[in-house]
Amino acid sequence: MDLVKFFHMNGGVGEASYSSNSGLQRMGIMKTRRVIEEAVSNLCLSNIKYPKTLVMADLGCSLGPNTLLVGSMVINAVAKTSQEMGLNPPEVQINLNDLPTNDFNTIFCALQERGKKLSTEKVSDVHSPPSCYFTGVPGSYFGRLFPTESLNFVHSSYSLQWLSQLPELEEINKGNIYLASTTPESISKAYYEQFQADFFQFLRCRSEEMMVGGRMVLTLAGRTTEDPRGEESYYLWRPLAMALQEMVSEGLVDEAKFDTFNLPQFTASPTEIMKLVEIEGSFSIDHVEIFDVNWENWKTNKHDNDASQVIETDDNDVGHAVAKSIRAGIETLVANHFGEDILEDVFMRYAKFLTQRKSKKEDQTLVSVTVSLIRKG
Amino acid sequence: MDLVKFFHMNGGVGEASYSSNSGLQRMGIMKTRRVIEEAVSNLCLSNIKYPKTLVMADLGCSLGPNTLLVGSMVINAVAKTSQEMGLNPPEVQINLNDLPTNDFNTIFCALQERGKKLSTEKVSDVHSPPSCYFTGVPGSYFGRLFPTESLNFVHSSYSLQWLSQLPELEEINKGNIYLASTTPESISKAYYEQFQADFFQFLRCRSEEMMVGGRMVLTLAGRTTEDPRGEESYYLWRPLAMALQEMVSEGLVDEAKFDTFNLPQFTASPTEIMKLVEIEGSFSIDHVEIFDVNWENWKTNKHDNDASQVIETDDNDVGHAVAKSIRAGIETLVANHFGEDILEDVFMRYAKFLTQRKSKKEDQTLVSVTVSLIRKG
Repeated sequence: MDLVKFFHMNGGVGEASYSSNSGLQRMGIMKTRRVIEEAVSNLCLSNIKYPKTLVMADLGCSLGPNTLLVGSMVINAVAKTSQEMGLNPPEVQINLNDLPTNDFNTIFCALQERGKKLSTEKVSDVHSPPSCYFTGVPGSYFGRLFPTESLNFVHSSYSLQWLSQLPELEEINKGNIYLASTTPESISKAYYEQFQADFFQFLRCRSEEMMVGGRMVLTLAGRTTEDPRGEESYYLWRPLAMALQEMVSEGLVDEAKFDTFNLPQFTASPTEIMKLVEIEGSFSIDHVEIFDVNWENWKTNKHDNDASQVIETDDNDVGHAVAKSIRAGIETLVANHFGEDILEDVFMRYAKFLTQRKSKKEDQTLVSVTVSLIRKG
Repeated sequence: MDLVKFFHMNGGVGEASYSSNSGLQRMGIMKTRRVIEEAVSNLCLSNIKYPKTLVMADLGCSLGPNTLLVGSMVINAVAKTSQEMGLNPPEVQINLNDLPTNDFNTIFCALQERGKKLSTEKVSDVHSPPSCYFTGVPGSYFGRLFPTESLNFVHSSYSLQWLSQLPELEEINKGNIYLASTTPESISKAYYEQFQADFFQFLRCRSEEMMVGGRMVLTLAGRTTEDPRGEESYYLWRPLAMALQEMVSEGLVDEAKFDTFNLPQFTASPTEIMKLVEIEGSFSIDHVEIFDVNWENWKTNKHDNDASQVIETDDNDVGHAVAKSIRAGIETLVANHFGEDILEDVFMRYAKFLTQRKSKKEDQTLVSVTVSLIRKG
């Protein structure tokens, strides 16, 4: 399964697009604002000469309102730090990366309007706002994307939990579509080994691309428990497994197909992530934090920078909203395995099971891990 | 008329796409291969330290087989020069620029296959091929696109004859859609002034973005005659004017609409271009040449690097092929002015008049001007 060839967030700006259904990720990114701003500020101040250009990459940027969110945080941090130092801000080059099948056309048309705004917002009366320049960079971040030592700042959020490929499994993960309490240990081990190989590969490529002293902030969907087969990692996927199981029982989905469907993701713990960073050796750890994104009242319709503006909705609405959000992310995976015909049906059922789960007041948080790293000299 | 908002080559890879109809431009670019390779080679050799990275921009790259043609010429030149010097080749970053409405998605998916090939083709047994990295850069090159002093090499072909906007005209260009022998002088002057303003703006932006000693190769559709209202500049457009005129006489196109339709392009002479480069002052002129691209037997179906592989076709085929080629380039301009409904009809008639013209053995060459410039210290 070569994920690079087909895996992408849903394109465009319509009803089913990732652009319209990425509020959950937005809430998560908003919670990392302080970490991002501190990293950028320290990056500017730790240079012997105040930088003239800051080249950043947002890896796995996807598309939609979140795509420019991190860029705007970086620009604000650069502007604020420069203002405090009484210096002209560096120019900022923002490289937006995702797989080649990501809908870059939609990003580029949005950039025309929003990007202009970003670079002309007046920050203070004395200093001009940082000029900013955008590029789109198609390709997998498990390979090299940029020339050697060309980046100062790297960011990635809610991407690195996706594996480069599904690991080869020696047993069947019966009744599950990701690691669950009934998953055999060999499967859990294979998932972890794939995550480890991918994460090492990611760090190795970035260590080559980044300048010494460069900063990297990574946010991943993660977990707090030691065993990756805990309910915490599975709560979003159990209702989807239930939807597929129901379709198997109605003869709408082939059982063998269901048995071989597993999501190519791994939710790591902070301890696992820190250990891998230390073993790889190119980066020192500046800061780690773990936080929850609660989808109880997550649905924000406003695409502004204020995540506190949430709109209360009933359980049914939230179920549908979460289903749409997850669908915008994994539709291509489901379609590639089961065919496109089941999409409408399976995601309707998914919404139903999500709603049932929510009514029961079961746990409904997305655990996130953020690490802030420094490229060693 | 804000061209940035809608003007683009036809997207995708289908029958009417620019990808499938850019053979004429390809023949032109092939003729500049030597100039490009020399500029790149001199760029490498004139540095005190042999460069580790070469950052290039292809401005107005459009989409299709030509998009990677210049990149592959640059990579070959870098590989050859490095091999001759016995040095490791620099890494090459290729920034592909066009307006945000250009179909970058199609480029990025093609890159996945072809780009990989470019960067892994074995150049010699001793030295590894240059690593290359691609970005897409959406935006108008009449503004800044890159950070200060970040580029070594800039290329643009068959783009700079397009103006940033149609100049304000004080008179009506009766019966014409571009400068022709019956065009009033005030119109010809307004066109030249717009070209001058645009070209200055282009050079100013590039002078800021390029490093001292950086090279720039520009190829424009141009002319050999002193007066821009010569037949040479109009031969491709007269048949289109005739097609529109015929539709006016049949009541299919409003006469007032026809009277106000003028193409936002200017075909400059080498003398005009050199004069403007000298006045702007940031670049010295290394080389200028003028050449013809003849569309008598232009149609090459092979998207390889060998422009000599042309296939003889009859007049009717060539008329249709040229009409399709021009349509892929200017369809959005025609649709924006007249509406989409006339497109099929007008380009069918255009093909007819092109074929008639060709049967009469009238002049059928596209005059091109190439300048190779060096960013002054």
